[in-house]
Amino acid sequence: MSLLYADVLLQMHSVGICGSDVHYWQHGRIGDFVVRKPMVLGHEAAGVVVKTGSAVKHLKIGDRVAIEPGVPRDMDEFFKNGRYNLSPSIFFCATPPDNGNLCRYYKHNVLHNNYLVSVCQLTLLHNVLPDNVTFEEGALIEPLSVGIHACRRGGVTLGSTVFICGSGPIGLVCLLVAKAMGASKVIISDIVPERLSMAKELGADFQLQVKRENGPQQLAKSVEDLLGAQPHVTIECTGVESSVQTAIYATRSGGVVVLVGLGSEMATIPLINAAVREVDIRGVFRYCNTWPMAINMLASGKVNVKPLVTHRFPLEQAVQAFETTRQGVGIKVMLKCNQNDQNP
Amino acid sequence: MSLLYADVLLQMHSVGICGSDVHYWQHGRIGDFVVRKPMVLGHEAAGVVVKTGSAVKHLKIGDRVAIEPGVPRDMDEFFKNGRYNLSPSIFFCATPPDNGNLCRYYKHNVLHNNYLVSVCQLTLLHNVLPDNVTFEEGALIEPLSVGIHACRRGGVTLGSTVFICGSGPIGLVCLLVAKAMGASKVIISDIVPERLSMAKELGADFQLQVKRENGPQQLAKSVEDLLGAQPHVTIECTGVESSVQTAIYATRSGGVVVLVGLGSEMATIPLINAAVREVDIRGVFRYCNTWPMAINMLASGKVNVKPLVTHRFPLEQAVQAFETTRQGVGIKVMLKCNQNDQNP
Amino acid sequence: MSLLYADVLLQMHSVGICGSDVHYWQHGRIGDFVVRKPMVLGHEAAGVVVKTGSAVKHLKIGDRVAIEPGVPRDMDEFFKNGRYNLSPSIFFCATPPDNGNLCRYYKHNVLHNNYLVSVCQLTLLHNVLPDNVTFEEGALIEPLSVGIHACRRGGVTLGSTVFICGSGPIGLVCLLVAKAMGASKVIISDIVPERLSMAKELGADFQLQVKRENGPQQLAKSVEDLLGAQPHVTIECTGVESSVQTAIYATRSGGVVVLVGLGSEMATIPLINAAVREVDIRGVFRYCNTWPMAINMLASGKVNVKPLVTHRFPLEQAVQAFETTRQGVGIKVMLKCNQNDQNP
Amino acid sequence: MSLLYADVLLQMHSVGICGSDVHYWQHGRIGDFVVRKPMVLGHEAAGVVVKTGSAVKHLKIGDRVAIEPGVPRDMDEFFKNGRYNLSPSIFFCATPPDNGNLCRYYKHNVLHNNYLVSVCQLTLLHNVLPDNVTFEEGALIEPLSVGIHACRRGGVTLGSTVFICGSGPIGLVCLLVAKAMGASKVIISDIVPERLSMAKELGADFQLQVKRENGPQQLAKSVEDLLGAQPHVTIECTGVESSVQTAIYATRSGGVVVLVGLGSEMATIPLINAAVREVDIRGVFRYCNTWPMAINMLASGKVNVKPLVTHRFPLEQAVQAFETTRQGVGIKVMLKCNQNDQNP
Repeated sequence: MSLLYADVLLQMHSVGICGSDVHYWQHGRIGDFVVRKPMVLGHEAAGVVVKTGSAVKHLKIGDRVAIEPGVPRDMDEFFKNGRYNLSPSIFFCATPPDNGNLCRYYKHNVLHNNYLVSVCQLTLLHNVLPDNVTFEEGALIEPLSVGIHACRRGGVTLGSTVFICGSGPIGLVCLLVAKAMGASKVIISDIVPERLSMAKELGADFQLQVKRENGPQQLAKSVEDLLGAQPHVTIECTGVESSVQTAIYATRSGGVVVLVGLGSEMATIPLINAAVREVDIRGVFRYCNTWPMAINMLASGKVNVKPLVTHRFPLEQAVQAFETTRQGVGIKVMLKCNQNDQNP
Repeated sequence: MSLLYADVLLQMHSVGICGSDVHYWQHGRIGDFVVRKPMVLGHEAAGVVVKTGSAVKHLKIGDRVAIEPGVPRDMDEFFKNGRYNLSPSIFFCATPPDNGNLCRYYKHNVLHNNYLVSVCQLTLLHNVLPDNVTFEEGALIEPLSVGIHACRRGGVTLGSTVFICGSGPIGLVCLLVAKAMGASKVIISDIVPERLSMAKELGADFQLQVKRENGPQQLAKSVEDLLGAQPHVTIECTGVESSVQTAIYATRSGGVVVLVGLGSEMATIPLINAAVREVDIRGVFRYCNTWPMAINMLASGKVNVKPLVTHRFPLEQAVQAFETTRQGVGIKVMLKCNQNDQNP
Repeated sequence: MSLLYADVLLQMHSVGICGSDVHYWQHGRIGDFVVRKPMVLGHEAAGVVVKTGSAVKHLKIGDRVAIEPGVPRDMDEFFKNGRYNLSPSIFFCATPPDNGNLCRYYKHNVLHNNYLVSVCQLTLLHNVLPDNVTFEEGALIEPLSVGIHACRRGGVTLGSTVFICGSGPIGLVCLLVAKAMGASKVIISDIVPERLSMAKELGADFQLQVKRENGPQQLAKSVEDLLGAQPHVTIECTGVESSVQTAIYATRSGGVVVLVGLGSEMATIPLINAAVREVDIRGVFRYCNTWPMAINMLASGKVNVKPLVTHRFPLEQAVQAFETTRQGVGIKVMLKCNQNDQNP
Repeated sequence: MSLLYADVLLQMHSVGICGSDVHYWQHGRIGDFVVRKPMVLGHEAAGVVVKTGSAVKHLKIGDRVAIEPGVPRDMDEFFKNGRYNLSPSIFFCATPPDNGNLCRYYKHNVLHNNYLVSVCQLTLLHNVLPDNVTFEEGALIEPLSVGIHACRRGGVTLGSTVFICGSGPIGLVCLLVAKAMGASKVIISDIVPERLSMAKELGADFQLQVKRENGPQQLAKSVEDLLGAQPHVTIECTGVESSVQTAIYATRSGGVVVLVGLGSEMATIPLINAAVREVDIRGVFRYCNTWPMAINMLASGKVNVKPLVTHRFPLEQAVQAFETTRQGVGIKVMLKCNQNDQNP
């Protein structure tokens, strides 16, 4: 494989499967993003540098790296303001038409854009994993980043009380991050009891079993009763309309509802209730400025993401791995891309 | 009239009529606030100190004052955090069961609470009007405060582009404040052409005439076309569902929609559109920490609210004044409570 | 003892000794605060409600409470903005001429001010200790609050690297709080090796032994070498001029130096170095809005302050206790004011 | 002149002279920045596109542009966080060893770095001047940016009272920006009466004539007396030690001192006074994210910088122009680089 002067070739080690990967696989589209030609999936990834272009100075063969899947293509206002995730022309692994990195070898440059080659090189530079951080932890920085961005957007800090709607993989990383940021109490909800058990193991202070017959205001009352007061921050990870309603009713005046889960295009919500209590509604789109910091958190042991990996498959069994994720079994399924090293 | 040791007696001079006053007059309630016994209306008010209790040291007879209608009753978390407008037990003029100040003489203390007497005295202390600020300007600090709070919540600053939905009295004060905060361009919309003309006179850079057949996305496109780019901040002052939809579609990624107008309890909005572009949705509930600053702005001539007063009536003609407001004629109707001084 | 209608009488249980208590004892003044008549010391305190005035509704006999020593006297701009610690007329226990609470029984009202009686009652209301928080933990909320306020002012958050100058009691609480807020690495310095050992036990990732011959830039370089990069936030707890210099040189561009320790009136510092790297210099004056949150943190076990108490004396041996603190032995000396209950 | 595929060639029109240009001319260095080989001066510049590389799509011949002199070279943490002015490897016109743009023709690319060519192209793209903004106004965006960045860092907003130390060119742009951001009152100081007169013409509400015998605390008292209260924000533009002291004493508790002027390496200041009143000290290093916004402000007439230009010289008389600046005559000296168009 020929490398341009600033390219970096990676041998992939571990790649997690995300719900969006499954969605593209099953439906060929997410909203306006349509798969129109064959596309490599995967964007939760870590690997090792095996070859570098002539101009690459700050990375060397053997460096273990975690890959940030989004790389801005334009020096637009969002990039200059530090919110590059909002740049409309951003490259993003496994969002059509951009290929992902679920493969044996991945050339980390993006299209024919000299600017971006250089950016990627520098991006990787800051994402070298210390020895005590495994490849799988490196791959998990991607979902962890969603939790970090959500908790930052929500303003979680020392003493915050937090309500997380939904204890799937994203709800659980939000839980881990909220606790690491100093939240005093976290309550998490779900329909599936097994998921709540997992949340309890990961540190949730309270679990709320949601039943289909519970109304939003009733659930909001339960949250308040369990916490002893309304939560400062609610992180909605389901995208279900009634859950967004619950999130608004449940949140303390002056607090924040963070929208992480995505539902249908239009939603009917108690907007007046939010407005007159100054409960802010803030969405998240992926994340920005999380990788180097997340590596620090993992290296220092402040956040433990290892229990999130419940299944592993060699790359050859990718279909089975995707099927496992599709069925919602376990939390995170990891694909092992290096035939000679299937360790975490 | 007997005064407690810390009471202050005011002779009222000018009191503006607010839409909420008309609503209580016509319907006897706004949402959960129900008028159950006779209640004095009025909360946009200025007057002069005519008598003080024995303990009052910092105010003297003859001081001209603007009255902040909200006074927190409890030292709760909201008060201690500087967001006393969210305190659920706050006293507020002309919100049942609390009396307003549309009267000849107003004793500015609040219920039987020694604490609050003292608070009120101190509140008034900071609201003494300089000679070059008229009583009517003092009374207009109340609606101006809504604009200040809305623009603060929206983060309007130097170079901001702002879209204001609705050019009624509140839309117009938002316009004045946005310009004073350094907004480079303000576009304002309305259905009524006369209101847009008034907005133009007050400094709006662009006016958008809304027609019933215009869809939200179409209107959003018009806003972008007129400004040359999507606005950073949208301030929604109508409460109409389709206008909230327009507000979301119109706002730039990473921007803010401020909800000032109140519509029906539930609203159907393009929540995903807001979420994935990180357009924050923030309501406002009245205001906090605006009076002393607003007095400074008026004294220094940075904001000119005088053109907002289009009608004046002596207090004896209050019904006619209320009727004028009810019909939506002009912008602000002012009631003159002092028979010997009907000047602005 | 007669109680006004809103007074609360407390039987004191545990009161910690602060460096400022010792300073008033030894020198009779701190800066402009001069002890001109006998003054009760003590402001790190917890006790139990033994009597209430007729108007007290929200506290009952037997409630265990932690006492916030500062209570604003005026409804000034600082109070209304949520920064009541800056209110120049604030009451503060054991800052002359205001009495502290190192005594058997403490009537928690402040001077002859009806407003403040009510405030105090409400303040205590929010500071009731849950069963799993001891009196001593309640008393330690005061120094803990300094750490919370310092870390908030410094913007410590998930992934922050923090340098703390000085590992006395305040340095140690800053350490505890920084870790609880998500700091990935904390380095702490001191001249005394024993203090560094204690810091290590409490969770410091790195300790820096300072020697008198070390220059500020040399120490700054050591901090960078140990952390692998310059810290985002430096919290200066010594007040020593050379240490402030070290703090500035050590901090990352765009970071913050928080000044907690107080030295001499004028200080010579590398101001240009701070300015052109946009290293902000922010002082702290006591704290605000920390008690209820700190109680939550203690109740949930997020912060463990118990190891800070190294000595206990019954109130009768107060002189010996003060002498212990004066000699800098151990960390925190606790005075036990209830002869029938000397438990933590 | 040959152009790389993404280069842009500009014919320079107007270039302002900055104090730093004069300093390099006279002393060959500013702090650690030493001129070791011939260097082109100039960084306040505007020109017109006369040639574009083959890959340039968004700029066309004839586009009038204002040039942002700083372009980050590395995708480091500062750049990703939106504070690219702090990037240690940033390219900056006329800071050795980087050439400035005081010349007839300027090839706007930066060293041999494909990434940066692309960045510069995009940077220029957003800096195209509308027809109603002159080249000189375009050139003045550079000093205006210092004022914008300083006022942003100081948190100037609606109703702020601002004290500006020094009414040279930078003090005056701070004045213009502070007023545009909604400051209610601005007081400005200087030793030279003529400068204060100019400040008055540009909108300063109060002028303070400083005499060498005035002590810092005395001057601080004068500021308070003139404003009627201490200012919220002080912007120090002289770099003189005693003026920094005045700035601290003068500023309101909880306020901000912004350091714009640079003095000697070490400064002796009343650090305790600042710390215990939580007066933050914040430096500025150039600016970031100002150009597109500043163009909007100029185009909309919100800020009028035209009166700042007091002298113009054709490029041939550059020495005379520099001499004029060196003598401190007038405010801003503009060099006209296009022999066929010497208009503003």
